[in-house]
Amino acid sequence: MDYFKNIEKIKYEGMNSNNPLAFKHYNPDESIAGKTMKELLRFSVAYWHTFTMDGSDPFGSPTMQRPWDQYSGMDQAKVRVEANFEFIDKLGFDYFAFHDVDVAPEGSNLKEYNQNLDEIVSLLEKQMKAQNVSLLWNTSNMFSHPRFMFGAATSNNADVYAYAAAKVKKQLEIAKELDAKNYVFWGGREGYETLLYTDTKFELDNLARFYHMAVDYAKEIGYEGQFLIEPKPKEPTKHQYDFDTATTYAFLQHYNLTDHFKVNIEANHATLAGHTFEHELRYAREHGILGSVDANQGDMLLGWDTDEFPSDIYSAVLAMYEILKNGGLGNGGLNFDAKVRRPSFEPIDLVHGHIVGMDTFAYGCKVAQQLIEDQVFENIIAKRYSSFEEGVGKAIIENKVSFKELQEYAMENTIKNESGHQEMIKGILNQYILKAGVPAKV
Amino acid sequence: MDYFKNIEKIKYEGMNSNNPLAFKHYNPDESIAGKTMKELLRFSVAYWHTFTMDGSDPFGSPTMQRPWDQYSGMDQAKVRVEANFEFIDKLGFDYFAFHDVDVAPEGSNLKEYNQNLDEIVSLLEKQMKAQNVSLLWNTSNMFSHPRFMFGAATSNNADVYAYAAAKVKKQLEIAKELDAKNYVFWGGREGYETLLYTDTKFELDNLARFYHMAVDYAKEIGYEGQFLIEPKPKEPTKHQYDFDTATTYAFLQHYNLTDHFKVNIEANHATLAGHTFEHELRYAREHGILGSVDANQGDMLLGWDTDEFPSDIYSAVLAMYEILKNGGLGNGGLNFDAKVRRPSFEPIDLVHGHIVGMDTFAYGCKVAQQLIEDQVFENIIAKRYSSFEEGVGKAIIENKVSFKELQEYAMENTIKNESGHQEMIKGILNQYILKAGVPAKV
Amino acid sequence: MDYFKNIEKIKYEGMNSNNPLAFKHYNPDESIAGKTMKELLRFSVAYWHTFTMDGSDPFGSPTMQRPWDQYSGMDQAKVRVEANFEFIDKLGFDYFAFHDVDVAPEGSNLKEYNQNLDEIVSLLEKQMKAQNVSLLWNTSNMFSHPRFMFGAATSNNADVYAYAAAKVKKQLEIAKELDAKNYVFWGGREGYETLLYTDTKFELDNLARFYHMAVDYAKEIGYEGQFLIEPKPKEPTKHQYDFDTATTYAFLQHYNLTDHFKVNIEANHATLAGHTFEHELRYAREHGILGSVDANQGDMLLGWDTDEFPSDIYSAVLAMYEILKNGGLGNGGLNFDAKVRRPSFEPIDLVHGHIVGMDTFAYGCKVAQQLIEDQVFENIIAKRYSSFEEGVGKAIIENKVSFKELQEYAMENTIKNESGHQEMIKGILNQYILKAGVPAKV
Amino acid sequence: MDYFKNIEKIKYEGMNSNNPLAFKHYNPDESIAGKTMKELLRFSVAYWHTFTMDGSDPFGSPTMQRPWDQYSGMDQAKVRVEANFEFIDKLGFDYFAFHDVDVAPEGSNLKEYNQNLDEIVSLLEKQMKAQNVSLLWNTSNMFSHPRFMFGAATSNNADVYAYAAAKVKKQLEIAKELDAKNYVFWGGREGYETLLYTDTKFELDNLARFYHMAVDYAKEIGYEGQFLIEPKPKEPTKHQYDFDTATTYAFLQHYNLTDHFKVNIEANHATLAGHTFEHELRYAREHGILGSVDANQGDMLLGWDTDEFPSDIYSAVLAMYEILKNGGLGNGGLNFDAKVRRPSFEPIDLVHGHIVGMDTFAYGCKVAQQLIEDQVFENIIAKRYSSFEEGVGKAIIENKVSFKELQEYAMENTIKNESGHQEMIKGILNQYILKAGVPAKV
Repeated sequence: MDYFKNIEKIKYEGMNSNNPLAFKHYNPDESIAGKTMKELLRFSVAYWHTFTMDGSDPFGSPTMQRPWDQYSGMDQAKVRVEANFEFIDKLGFDYFAFHDVDVAPEGSNLKEYNQNLDEIVSLLEKQMKAQNVSLLWNTSNMFSHPRFMFGAATSNNADVYAYAAAKVKKQLEIAKELDAKNYVFWGGREGYETLLYTDTKFELDNLARFYHMAVDYAKEIGYEGQFLIEPKPKEPTKHQYDFDTATTYAFLQHYNLTDHFKVNIEANHATLAGHTFEHELRYAREHGILGSVDANQGDMLLGWDTDEFPSDIYSAVLAMYEILKNGGLGNGGLNFDAKVRRPSFEPIDLVHGHIVGMDTFAYGCKVAQQLIEDQVFENIIAKRYSSFEEGVGKAIIENKVSFKELQEYAMENTIKNESGHQEMIKGILNQYILKAGVPAKV
Repeated sequence: MDYFKNIEKIKYEGMNSNNPLAFKHYNPDESIAGKTMKELLRFSVAYWHTFTMDGSDPFGSPTMQRPWDQYSGMDQAKVRVEANFEFIDKLGFDYFAFHDVDVAPEGSNLKEYNQNLDEIVSLLEKQMKAQNVSLLWNTSNMFSHPRFMFGAATSNNADVYAYAAAKVKKQLEIAKELDAKNYVFWGGREGYETLLYTDTKFELDNLARFYHMAVDYAKEIGYEGQFLIEPKPKEPTKHQYDFDTATTYAFLQHYNLTDHFKVNIEANHATLAGHTFEHELRYAREHGILGSVDANQGDMLLGWDTDEFPSDIYSAVLAMYEILKNGGLGNGGLNFDAKVRRPSFEPIDLVHGHIVGMDTFAYGCKVAQQLIEDQVFENIIAKRYSSFEEGVGKAIIENKVSFKELQEYAMENTIKNESGHQEMIKGILNQYILKAGVPAKV
Repeated sequence: MDYFKNIEKIKYEGMNSNNPLAFKHYNPDESIAGKTMKELLRFSVAYWHTFTMDGSDPFGSPTMQRPWDQYSGMDQAKVRVEANFEFIDKLGFDYFAFHDVDVAPEGSNLKEYNQNLDEIVSLLEKQMKAQNVSLLWNTSNMFSHPRFMFGAATSNNADVYAYAAAKVKKQLEIAKELDAKNYVFWGGREGYETLLYTDTKFELDNLARFYHMAVDYAKEIGYEGQFLIEPKPKEPTKHQYDFDTATTYAFLQHYNLTDHFKVNIEANHATLAGHTFEHELRYAREHGILGSVDANQGDMLLGWDTDEFPSDIYSAVLAMYEILKNGGLGNGGLNFDAKVRRPSFEPIDLVHGHIVGMDTFAYGCKVAQQLIEDQVFENIIAKRYSSFEEGVGKAIIENKVSFKELQEYAMENTIKNESGHQEMIKGILNQYILKAGVPAKV
Repeated sequence: MDYFKNIEKIKYEGMNSNNPLAFKHYNPDESIAGKTMKELLRFSVAYWHTFTMDGSDPFGSPTMQRPWDQYSGMDQAKVRVEANFEFIDKLGFDYFAFHDVDVAPEGSNLKEYNQNLDEIVSLLEKQMKAQNVSLLWNTSNMFSHPRFMFGAATSNNADVYAYAAAKVKKQLEIAKELDAKNYVFWGGREGYETLLYTDTKFELDNLARFYHMAVDYAKEIGYEGQFLIEPKPKEPTKHQYDFDTATTYAFLQHYNLTDHFKVNIEANHATLAGHTFEHELRYAREHGILGSVDANQGDMLLGWDTDEFPSDIYSAVLAMYEILKNGGLGNGGLNFDAKVRRPSFEPIDLVHGHIVGMDTFAYGCKVAQQLIEDQVFENIIAKRYSSFEEGVGKAIIENKVSFKELQEYAMENTIKNESGHQEMIKGILNQYILKAGVPAKV
């Protein structure tokens, strides 16, 4: 097997390397904050963008040259397994992630589909053991097939709901078998095309019901991975129910699901919802629901999900800052839910894409760790909020005062704010970004 | 007093009138769904846009010609009260709404400010009784003064927090005195300019603490109006905590505030958050938190809050549909949080603006009511979701099945979806809109 | 042949009809401004969205049920011709439009492709004569095939450029043969994915060169239709060279092409570029380059080309206002570059979509004509600009003054502006929209 | 005079300095591409944001603490002159830029205004000579005063047009006197609020007429600076005529003004128009109209002009790449049309803002120069377009072939594209950015 022919294992060569097929910043065994980079970053290959994405777009047909596309059906599925593990080996991944439809053809009915899945899953399991690779998460694609045109767990058609249940049941069994660290729900069609014909409350009730059934079934079969919901505001639907992390958190609370679910945050979904990536991570972290991350980036001038490989260092620094403050991602990881551009159609572009992504996050991790070590933002914040450490401020956060006491205080008091110095802080951030590249001894 | 000189009381003349200073659709005493239009629509004048907005924008100085601007200080404040009630009389309003700073000058300290407020409030009270006008809501402006540059209840400065408490305390007392139907919080600066120096969790905890204090104080003084939070995603801050209705609902649940708060939904804030107006109303309605409405509209190609007078009939129909389905707005109303364009600088433009707004919502109300009477969307929805009325669908919504039974069912079942016919439905909606204008007898 | 089975010819039944399969506003032979609606509106069927669009999107596979999809290759192509003319007959169209790839399969090489085209074109020609139907425009699809991944006339690959030339050459011959009223260029991939590897000047020079060759070849073969460029800002590419009408006009002037090209304006492309539909029409009209219109609408909250059937009456009124002021569209027409939503998968939805589109524009046309007859905006404008009809204003527009005289005048003069009364005007517009639905006699 | 008290002259201390009041990258006399950084970058202070911006926004009143705000009228104007030159001295600027209203109070009429201007201009002139500082450009503010509510040179009111002419006339005289390198037109209100009452053609004709008068008057008085137009798509108006560079270029060509005008490109205006900063620079460069730059940055998630100090290194690198490829900016420079955030209200924040801006562009300049020296993009492009260097490609660009020859060629040819390798190129760009910080010897 040699689907990435002539490509050697990608090695760390340091930032002064000019070799495009080497890591300049990702040094798997380098220690950061007491862990190795490998342990901290938990990079994962997204099966779909890497092995099944064909380069088509709404205005164009496939462009990708993939050695495994000379096969079809189960043959192709098996070859993709090989390609996946070859790719994992060459890039040095510990994790991967897939939708059911990525790994096995659907066949002509559910039974045949499940058989196909079983056959592939045993191949995956064998190879995972052989290469000591883990499944970051699996999920069920409930958006591509026409049957899901009105959603899956939010479909107006009970038969579709039942079908979705059958799909997720099977995937949970696979999750159990492959010891998936997480199980993900991305509600691509769980939303609406128009309010005019949609009973949104009915659909949301059904969605919650579905999640409870999933929790119950996981318990029944002893699957102990973390359930994740991946927010996205829109596309393919006009509006998706899991618009962003806050909306998802409202849902989880409303339907008594907070004990069982966290979120899988994607950078490009964040920006489509009008938020920065770091905002979504921060919100999830502070509400105890930061589960995992889909590491990619969007184009801020384009209104759709471009799923580009992450290369923006600012974004990676601020994302890694949140992740490090979270004590890492626990069961989660950094999954490259990213695709090469349509005209980057050669297999080697998959390698380039992942290298830039891994180096970007590795670099971001270094900078973020340095910022934390030096307590850069922590010190600024401690100073800014210091008025709450004594006097009336302390009384407020200890719940010892009411409007009356506060009014009395305010009547006699003179207020003095201090500048936020945002411009200076941005200069400091730039310095940390530019200097992390300099070898420590210089 | 004659601040709107030469302007007669605006009367309903019917849709064939060519008089720009007449209502063509808003007929206050006309009955719709068992209530008068007046009762259903509960239109309210926004004190700020009508009596204090001066036409300045980030690139230009004031343009508005306002007879009361020849005065200043408390004199001006008193004249504005007169103008408000004259305007209310001429347009036939039953409600108005204000921020503290709209009605009285801040003076040199809180004590003086409260005295100013007391003086004006007694004028308001007297005139409210005289004209049988109610206060839809009052609120405290905690975003304009420099002291609030980092927020009020989310400020990093405890002294600012105390000051904000004093302001809200006073406003709650005024709400009690004037029997305000609601008390509103719009967190214009409750958010962040940059995550780099912001402790978001600390700020949100403090915000919730503040709301609990407000609830406690209202209880203490026996104020029984409804508390409302008005979501907005951004502007003036980079990010506001009450981004949209769902985010606000997540907050209310997290901090155990759902029993005390509903939302005040503004159309332009909805679209800035990436939602339609009707989406926000729907979400609020179905989660039991639809409190009141700021009736205006934005420009979908501009990225800031334009607060235009509502003139889009589509939007009004779909908004009124949600409101009618909610059984009306309860304590709430349709407050015209809308301003005339900067070059519409004559007092008469205030009249034109309100006429177009009132007519638009009145027309929308008629169309929405007809749609409901004819069960147009209800029938479509009943048919679309009918699979949940029997068999497996019924079992699902009665929580009688788990993934296992659903899988068994799905294994043997064949799925058939039916077209959503969205294009046809849009054609029907157009017909309802165009035909509501035709006298019933035609 | 009966691809739209059980569907009768769609007839005009007037606005009080409840028959969803009837026109309520489009009355082909009704006279407006001295022409029939049919002559004024020149509706056209878009072959691609109607006969080849399959309902797939970036996250989902085809949904459309199309009787002709049981065939393939040339058989399918022939059946589509039949379906097209059956559809044209049932809806009463006079025009249609196509891309080369819509009507004939590409075969294995250019020669075979051209033979396929020839065979289909003769079928089209025959049927056009039989039904007295015209070709509004044809065009060459130079964006779907992988060879065009870097553009066609702006490709970095000379071989692709030559291939594009061959395709357009053939289409011009077909345009000549079928007497196409226009020939359209939409540069779907004529733009860039990234500036980092793009020589924009080189590409624009080549594009202009290509257009000049097209003009030369049309002259050579005696094709006298109008050349059109269809602006779009982005999608599929990151940036398209024909961003909007103004950008296209800059290009035409720079490369000396204004004598030969006009624009084909699409509503959804306008809004993606940050403009209203009517803005683009106005700009084109006033610069003498308004050629034809792709009648559809986008979703203002979605950042991609949704190509919905037009149903917004406001937009239709303002578009028709510009078109009527232009004296109609000349060679152009209103082509429904619109597709039914993915879940509107039945053939009848194609009928519903076109009915709502045609009725919307017919209604818009009536309202616009009434506005013009009554000189509503014309009178407002005449009054607003009246200061240029005498004195210094007249001197200015007659080029009789310089800065010196104007300074002298300004030194002694006092300025007085008058309100624009925008709110009142919007109320008037609403009245025209709502009242056009009322039979004249009422 | 000591308006920036306790602040020493800002010096270059190198990238390892931790002194927030030092340059880490901007080393004025360091040589890059044969020029000093000072010569290449031509940094300029924007008078308005630095000396008159008060921190107010649409929802809040002024926050800025400015020593000169204790004065008013001409006293304040004179003190601002001192502050300007002190600031220039401390930061080491060679240029500054102003609107007429920034430097002198308008007085009660034009005559008084011109006298005020004359008095200040002589102060400016004296100090410019004393400190060897130049005026990058001046301009006339024709958007803030209510008289310009409908525009200046595009006003519907001839008296306003005359007034605008008087203002520009005076500013041209000042430009001559102070040897301004450029004279700028930013049409803040030259556009429309609504098409409903706007005669766009009339207004554009008048605008062109105005520009021709300006050119004539400059000639008359012997002013030889470069005229510049600054594009912006919207804000404060709904739509500005100079939407972007391409639109402006269309206008210049249409009205025969290309010989006299170039563009002043602002980063934040570019992104508001849906373009990257580098796109606008590229378009201007390749069309020969790149005049000068307003160096700032926007927030890609906010829909208004935030005018932040530039701190994004990616953007600075790509901007400087275009500027270096342009052979520098000629008469132009990098003017910091940027304001400190509202809560950065201390005078020292002005210093921090400019330091981060200057360091960002200095760093960007270094990286861009290295990219050019190494011919990174040039080599990629040369290879990508090499098919046009021989055979059919060469024939195409030499205009030696028509559609016929190209078709013949295409009939026999097989096309082969090569991957664009965008992901690899982004990795290379990251390496250049991170490594430019490393001292050359490492």
